[in-house]
Amino acid sequence: MFLGATQLVFAQSHPNLILTKKGVEEIRKNLGTVPMFDVALAKVKAEVDAEIEIGIQVPIPKDMSGGYTHERHKLNFFILQKAGNLYQITGEEKYAEYIRQHLLAYAKMFPTLPKHPTDRSYATGKIFWQCLNDANWLVYVSQAYDCVYDFMSKKERDFVEKDLFRPLAEWVSTENPKFFNRVHNHSTWANAAVGMIGLVMNDKELIQRALYGLENDGLDNSMVDNDGGFIKVEGQNKAGFFAQLDFSFSPDGHFTEGPYYLRYAMTPFLLFAKSLSNTRPELKIYDYRNGILEKSIYSLLYETDAQGRFFPINDSQKGMSWNSREVVAAVDIAYLDFGNDPMLLSIAQKQGKVTLDVAGFKTAADIEKGLTIPFEHKSISYTDGAEGKHGGLGILRTDNADGEETCVVAKYAAHGMGHGHFDKLSYSLYDEDGEVIQDYGAARWVNIDQKGGGRYLKENQTFAKQTVGHNTLVVNEISHYEGKVKAAEASHPDQYFFDIKNPNVQAVSAKELHAYPDAMMHRTLVLLKDKNFRNPLLIDVFRVESKNENQYDLPTWFHGHLLATNFDYATQMNSLTTLGKDHGYQHIWKEASGQSSDKGNQITWFAHQGDGGGEVNGKIFTMTTSSENNDELIFARAGANDPNFNLRNDPVFIQRRKAGNSVFASVIESHGTYDAVSETPSTPFSELKSVEVIHDSKDYTVIQITHQTDKVWLLAIANTDASEKKSHQVKLKSKTLIWQGPFILK
Amino acid sequence: MFLGATQLVFAQSHPNLILTKKGVEEIRKNLGTVPMFDVALAKVKAEVDAEIEIGIQVPIPKDMSGGYTHERHKLNFFILQKAGNLYQITGEEKYAEYIRQHLLAYAKMFPTLPKHPTDRSYATGKIFWQCLNDANWLVYVSQAYDCVYDFMSKKERDFVEKDLFRPLAEWVSTENPKFFNRVHNHSTWANAAVGMIGLVMNDKELIQRALYGLENDGLDNSMVDNDGGFIKVEGQNKAGFFAQLDFSFSPDGHFTEGPYYLRYAMTPFLLFAKSLSNTRPELKIYDYRNGILEKSIYSLLYETDAQGRFFPINDSQKGMSWNSREVVAAVDIAYLDFGNDPMLLSIAQKQGKVTLDVAGFKTAADIEKGLTIPFEHKSISYTDGAEGKHGGLGILRTDNADGEETCVVAKYAAHGMGHGHFDKLSYSLYDEDGEVIQDYGAARWVNIDQKGGGRYLKENQTFAKQTVGHNTLVVNEISHYEGKVKAAEASHPDQYFFDIKNPNVQAVSAKELHAYPDAMMHRTLVLLKDKNFRNPLLIDVFRVESKNENQYDLPTWFHGHLLATNFDYATQMNSLTTLGKDHGYQHIWKEASGQSSDKGNQITWFAHQGDGGGEVNGKIFTMTTSSENNDELIFARAGANDPNFNLRNDPVFIQRRKAGNSVFASVIESHGTYDAVSETPSTPFSELKSVEVIHDSKDYTVIQITHQTDKVWLLAIANTDASEKKSHQVKLKSKTLIWQGPFILK
Repeated sequence: MFLGATQLVFAQSHPNLILTKKGVEEIRKNLGTVPMFDVALAKVKAEVDAEIEIGIQVPIPKDMSGGYTHERHKLNFFILQKAGNLYQITGEEKYAEYIRQHLLAYAKMFPTLPKHPTDRSYATGKIFWQCLNDANWLVYVSQAYDCVYDFMSKKERDFVEKDLFRPLAEWVSTENPKFFNRVHNHSTWANAAVGMIGLVMNDKELIQRALYGLENDGLDNSMVDNDGGFIKVEGQNKAGFFAQLDFSFSPDGHFTEGPYYLRYAMTPFLLFAKSLSNTRPELKIYDYRNGILEKSIYSLLYETDAQGRFFPINDSQKGMSWNSREVVAAVDIAYLDFGNDPMLLSIAQKQGKVTLDVAGFKTAADIEKGLTIPFEHKSISYTDGAEGKHGGLGILRTDNADGEETCVVAKYAAHGMGHGHFDKLSYSLYDEDGEVIQDYGAARWVNIDQKGGGRYLKENQTFAKQTVGHNTLVVNEISHYEGKVKAAEASHPDQYFFDIKNPNVQAVSAKELHAYPDAMMHRTLVLLKDKNFRNPLLIDVFRVESKNENQYDLPTWFHGHLLATNFDYATQMNSLTTLGKDHGYQHIWKEASGQSSDKGNQITWFAHQGDGGGEVNGKIFTMTTSSENNDELIFARAGANDPNFNLRNDPVFIQRRKAGNSVFASVIESHGTYDAVSETPSTPFSELKSVEVIHDSKDYTVIQITHQTDKVWLLAIANTDASEKKSHQVKLKSKTLIWQGPFILK
Repeated sequence: MFLGATQLVFAQSHPNLILTKKGVEEIRKNLGTVPMFDVALAKVKAEVDAEIEIGIQVPIPKDMSGGYTHERHKLNFFILQKAGNLYQITGEEKYAEYIRQHLLAYAKMFPTLPKHPTDRSYATGKIFWQCLNDANWLVYVSQAYDCVYDFMSKKERDFVEKDLFRPLAEWVSTENPKFFNRVHNHSTWANAAVGMIGLVMNDKELIQRALYGLENDGLDNSMVDNDGGFIKVEGQNKAGFFAQLDFSFSPDGHFTEGPYYLRYAMTPFLLFAKSLSNTRPELKIYDYRNGILEKSIYSLLYETDAQGRFFPINDSQKGMSWNSREVVAAVDIAYLDFGNDPMLLSIAQKQGKVTLDVAGFKTAADIEKGLTIPFEHKSISYTDGAEGKHGGLGILRTDNADGEETCVVAKYAAHGMGHGHFDKLSYSLYDEDGEVIQDYGAARWVNIDQKGGGRYLKENQTFAKQTVGHNTLVVNEISHYEGKVKAAEASHPDQYFFDIKNPNVQAVSAKELHAYPDAMMHRTLVLLKDKNFRNPLLIDVFRVESKNENQYDLPTWFHGHLLATNFDYATQMNSLTTLGKDHGYQHIWKEASGQSSDKGNQITWFAHQGDGGGEVNGKIFTMTTSSENNDELIFARAGANDPNFNLRNDPVFIQRRKAGNSVFASVIESHGTYDAVSETPSTPFSELKSVEVIHDSKDYTVIQITHQTDKVWLLAIANTDASEKKSHQVKLKSKTLIWQGPFILK
């Protein structure tokens, strides 16, 4: 893949990075004929015109994110990129002039800048507090520069290249190798920044560096970034853009940090790839790794709930969705460059905007032509790890009679580097409106200065990453892999089976053998659509094997307000204490504790829809769990040891058991609704009588689900052989169950 | 007003109660021409047809609300009323037959019924657990009977009148005088039930009783209902429908229990009035008390937030709004009978439905004709008490540059009987989307069986009604009037002034002299619209006078998550205890405590919009308060001593001060927004530097509000003379302030 120097030397014509001369001509010719594009153009024009009105502002950098200089420089790079597109599309010179003046001002200031005075990052920037933001700036401003390249004089170009672009490119690469020479979303930005400005300037050395990394970076394996992630991964010595493409994704396009970070990394991946596609077509970048970029865009779209919000696995802020600008750009590029998939047009319509380039134009034009078909939010299994061998993510979806989606996400992925959470075999559950059983996400308020400058908070490490903050098993109050990134990175769970052949009985199953030295964990999740129930059921069978007696805690972070239980519990009345001392337990108030009833346990809760505005229309859910004698049933709430009110005060139900080998079986039903205006509940009670484990051995687990009408379902799982062909037989009290394949539900 | 017997004897023609022969003809003639009405008809038809499919179900009563027999009988009366209208409008006999069979079944069962077996109400019913529901049943079924009167044979009519209607009418009147002979929403239902069936049967004795009550009820003044309300009010010896009209409303139409209960009482008021208007036009019921019914409907519409949700003062469940069926009917009748106010059409459009009668038809037809104009949600002051002398409610509204409403509700009303809260001089604040500073509402989950059968919960009495649960001053941790209904009912606050002349500076001020034996309380709320701020500001000046040193607690139930403060505080890390022992304090966890800073105090919070679904788009608010040395600043949260998780875990900020005479001044700003998809906050910091009390004496209070730019506003209040003409003068450090009228802001 090494590019010969001769290949890099050929005549340049600007713009050629994202916009091209030909593309600009096509857009200009069709202005006024594609309403969605015309609206996008008018909006961007209004936005940039307002900034031109304010005038050039290039302050000496001093603030953290949220502060004035940070926000101003950030706004500048977005506006400059837009001004570049406006100049090309409209031909109005005021936009080019605006860019020119900015570039000259930045070039005048840049040589005077020391390292950013905050000095709080593992890789401190010049214009911003971290190199990452400097790289963001360069990715966007490279595009602006490309658009005005011919507008500026040679002398001006020489000045800005010498005093601004080249030294900045060096700053984010040779001068910060631990930022540049890594497989990580930060480095993807760095690679793209260096590569894109290299392409505009036709600088073969920078392009080479962007594609293949620094040859000698002098980095060692013990260095960590601000998130606790390791700079270098053992046995992984490549760097640069191709290395990002090789190692950031599983072969099917899943990004190990999760969709929230992929969304962020998508911009440099796609913009640099698009730039290479335009300027270096011989690289066939879109075909690289069997079209890994196309696959990664689809993984972004599939790793969302029914409303397009990303599953907040690992460090993620909730609310981020396919409406973000990064996904707007990704969808438009994917539509143009990856075969005009008409399902993408329905997402572009939901986004309601397109980019100001040929991709956006083509997308808008084809929507106008009525080519849209609905995006099918299908069940899908993703592998993790560059070779697809480090576990993965299983997404099951089905819908109710009204077409409303239920979706369960099983997480048995690799650790996710510095942003990974210790939540092996955890799951989260969504309905059409949003969260039912939530993943907490990150303890962070992105860009909200009042909360630690908008950065990750201490509680992200001490609570949000810990196992007990997730819907998965905690053994002896210790997080998976003792909460150690290095150990977690060295291992991973494995998918046991993923079966969506029968749309009414979909299942995913995975095992985790290494999170605890002496406990094998195996979870199976089944999404059952059955006419006896208003909505699909989630059936969860969590099996643990251990030679020792342990304390098992299985938390369920239900999203709502407890209505009722079928067991007695004692509530802490006048005082609260924490559930434990460490591993996240210190952040949880213990509110009440009960004892398992013989028939199994039910908790019913009420989930408000949109309670921010005072509405109380809602839904009523019940979780029915199997029980063993002396299970302790705990209601608790996040928020202890939280000196600055950083955590949400969310409720959790914890089933606690002392056992060696054991099975936790449960079913979650969405059975009821409540209309606040008529004050009428509809089917407020569970349809189920019980969930029982009626057989458990090394080889087989069988659970029985009993309806109020005494109708019974049996779910049998073959614990040690997941092959499709294998026949199994379990002798139960009343009958012998015979089936083929890893599981049966009947 | 006594009706001579001769007036009551004239020929009847059915239907004549809500529907009339003439009205039915008009509707029939125009079917198919008014889409909104045709849709309503089709929906009701589908609903009733589905019930006809199920068949007649008249079970022996046994359940509480939420249980099968309760819900079935409740559904029956709604469906029978609808079936009656369908029979009249469509002429299809299946609807009449369905009613006939029900009436015969009820008449067959009724004589066999003992008092309802639950026996848990102060007035137990026959068909339902309380007479109130029996009365609901009769109000609706009277209409059904009216519609099929001519369809049934004389023999059948005699049977159902003798074995069902007359004994039921007696049950809810002569046999339960404490239910019937009272001024209360329960009794309004009773009066309407007896009166409406009386009108259908042309029974002059029942009509007389409905209008004027029982002559000798044998009730004494100490009896209370299930809510702790007194059955009899001293000096108030009238009963019946006219007494309800005389005493339930203030002269301007405010209902003392608040809009949530008025919404509920509106149905019997309007249906009986409409029936009287149709059958006894000589009573001129709509003109009674200068059109009190019309005024009451408008009070319902004005006592709502921007989304039409009722202010949840007193016992109210949140989420109830002008979209309820009761308000749909009220708006349609008001439109037809009270002068065709075209603003009402805009509300009918929001409701999206109309009633199946002439009122609904006329409303739908005029919407179709394009006569709608927007409803103007104006600032308005309501008095309380039958003579309008028992304080009231002051509603101030204004909007921001985008037309989004800000609304503050000052409550200085009478106690509100059994549903009243001990919250004199409290306020709540709303923006376009909903609550900013919330009123907790009732501790009740209406019709949710799992929460105490859907009835008022113990915590309603011990927390929701108590002063500390509201945004008003608590002296020495004791609720207003020591939490005693009788004392609270005997007194009330008084409006001091209400001034909306200047739409940019609107103010309401009120005093409460009796809630504490030794503390005079005076609160002034100003809604300021000023170009220096993105949204209107709420300025709050709470003055208290006492000869003794007291502990003052001023709670602010902010709706959101704390972001930051400008003062230091210490958070309870490992354990929580309650804020106090009684008067609601036992239900509040004390989370953190800080000391006032010299410059005054700021707290900034983040309010999610619609977090039920996982969205985190939000707004950022700051409250800036004046401080005195040694003010304690407390962060706390509801939910202690709550064995069944009945309370919401809402946060509160409490300013605590030990003083005699004192002033608490504060400003609430809505300054920032946050977009979760772009992760961008906009103006996340307060525009204000400080709020200070710069003068306070018996006669005058002056506060100074200082902007970050050092721009200053002064608010001066004349504490002892609110006349418009009076001139005032206060000597401040820097200058002498001279003004005329009760206050000035400059």
